[in-house]
Amino acid sequence: MGKEVVNKQVLFKDYIEGVPKESDMELKSSTIALEVKEGTQDVLLKNLYLSCDPYMRGRMRNFHNSYIPPFAPGSVLQGFVVAKVILSDHPDFKEGDLVSGMSGWEEYSIIPKGKNLTKITRTDLPLSYFVGILGMPGITAYAGFFEVCSPKKGEHVFVSAASGAVGQLVGQFAKLMGCYVVGSAGSKEKVDLLKNKQGFDNAFNYKEEHDLNATLQRHFPEGIDIYFDNVGGSMLDAALVNMKVHGRIAVCGVISQNSFQNAQAIHNINMVIPKRIRLEGFLQSDYAHLYPQFLENVINYIKERKITYIEDVAEGLENAPAAFVGLFHGKNLGKQVVHISDE
Amino acid sequence: MGKEVVNKQVLFKDYIEGVPKESDMELKSSTIALEVKEGTQDVLLKNLYLSCDPYMRGRMRNFHNSYIPPFAPGSVLQGFVVAKVILSDHPDFKEGDLVSGMSGWEEYSIIPKGKNLTKITRTDLPLSYFVGILGMPGITAYAGFFEVCSPKKGEHVFVSAASGAVGQLVGQFAKLMGCYVVGSAGSKEKVDLLKNKQGFDNAFNYKEEHDLNATLQRHFPEGIDIYFDNVGGSMLDAALVNMKVHGRIAVCGVISQNSFQNAQAIHNINMVIPKRIRLEGFLQSDYAHLYPQFLENVINYIKERKITYIEDVAEGLENAPAAFVGLFHGKNLGKQVVHISDE
Repeated sequence: MGKEVVNKQVLFKDYIEGVPKESDMELKSSTIALEVKEGTQDVLLKNLYLSCDPYMRGRMRNFHNSYIPPFAPGSVLQGFVVAKVILSDHPDFKEGDLVSGMSGWEEYSIIPKGKNLTKITRTDLPLSYFVGILGMPGITAYAGFFEVCSPKKGEHVFVSAASGAVGQLVGQFAKLMGCYVVGSAGSKEKVDLLKNKQGFDNAFNYKEEHDLNATLQRHFPEGIDIYFDNVGGSMLDAALVNMKVHGRIAVCGVISQNSFQNAQAIHNINMVIPKRIRLEGFLQSDYAHLYPQFLENVINYIKERKITYIEDVAEGLENAPAAFVGLFHGKNLGKQVVHISDE
Repeated sequence: MGKEVVNKQVLFKDYIEGVPKESDMELKSSTIALEVKEGTQDVLLKNLYLSCDPYMRGRMRNFHNSYIPPFAPGSVLQGFVVAKVILSDHPDFKEGDLVSGMSGWEEYSIIPKGKNLTKITRTDLPLSYFVGILGMPGITAYAGFFEVCSPKKGEHVFVSAASGAVGQLVGQFAKLMGCYVVGSAGSKEKVDLLKNKQGFDNAFNYKEEHDLNATLQRHFPEGIDIYFDNVGGSMLDAALVNMKVHGRIAVCGVISQNSFQNAQAIHNINMVIPKRIRLEGFLQSDYAHLYPQFLENVINYIKERKITYIEDVAEGLENAPAAFVGLFHGKNLGKQVVHISDE
């Protein structure tokens, strides 16, 4: 019988509608035995970094039949993590290994059969990168831009939520490809970072714009070739009328929408005909085959300082709910992670 | 100086909003000299069949910068025709040739430099087919289905306005490909023709359905792979929630929409993300390179009686305005043409 230790956890209380609040989650201390049963192939993790991602909101809703099931009310929240293996009954993992994968919002997690864990072999990069630029948001940006948007050198690219985990990478991938890139974000600080640190050709604070249609026309007088949509709603509507003929819209997220099923209506979808627009929704999970190529390319970009990656690191599990909720109010500056432990 | 003859014409009075009315057009008799000036390469046509097409509504609006300019108020309406060459100063055309192309809604038209006229060499097929199944609506259906929808054998296909010029062909192309096909139309008679004459697996009268979402769920319990959208609006919204993962939507037309710029809002566009839907608007004019292949294939289908093509033929130029207006009220049974003259 392994030693019993305290295990702080973040519980999901009950299904929500609208935007997550801190009170939808609860901090709890339970205990866990530091052991894995023989023959189970289970892996015991100590979680080091948690990832706060907008898609998790979808799992808080009582909406089944989507691409991922909802959280169970009363259970520990789940998300992408970087973790250290404490004990392992799985042949692929041993004590001390660093891994990334899906785990619980808690200090220690048992991963049955080590499901979907990936060993981290590159220790020359910050560990938190493996839930960000080298993790799900990274492959989302990479596959979404290079595969879904079919970009060509010189094209004019618009990215919304451009300073977020995905947006900041899309914009920089587009610059590396020789595109002209404009991003939208929700504060002067974010806009400044996009323009001065991340190489965007231009950026604007959508909160200061009263006519998004006119804003996009000003930034793209000849039209938009590619719109990478992280927000949905009125920004998508404004983009539709500002697209060039044969423009492409990759629909990645709808962070602006407080409700998925009662989302803001779109009025300009008919523009897809005269402009022959291709609009495509995607999930990074369909592009797992690109992961090795993605990892090699993006690690090179990082090493060669061709990409500037901005993270917002909250400290301590007890601050995870606020960090997560902050995503929906644009409080994060860059990719939001939560640091739980160094080892 | 050529002989002067009476030339009955249909004039476009002034820009419209909403749905075209007969009073937006005016019948007029003018005269025309039956001559072409030497050195002009002009061609004088006698128009035999006029084509009534929904896209023409777009040209009645004071909306510039689209893919085709609006009609000039006070001028003769223009559209696709089948015509006979009366006189020609153009080396490619001679008296007696049958041609298709863009001409006026009038008995006789001068086509400067014979612009965009195509000689009809297959005289073993009804002439009216060259503004329908072998003309613009045909290549629209062919390119839209085979190129935009990326169909695979066995897939489940939904076609709206399925008994129209384009829809009836899309459904039959899909059947030839081994798909399961359901169409929507606006009358029992149309539904019966789709099911009994045109080989659709099923069809329904949308006017008798009160919950399109439930209707599509009933017809596609496992979801829709391909939606060929001729109507827009609430049918598109209902299709979005009934698509399968990786479904494709080809947006061809918006006949249900009384206004393009103040179109009915779409509420379910966010479904493109979890379902990874590709939605694409298209115009047949981008697929001109497919025309020879299209013509050969479709003529074979006609000859082998693999396609049943239904036309609604109005008689006489004076009935052209009513025939055209009827499109927007679903009065046509099949492709609407107007027969003006036999020779």
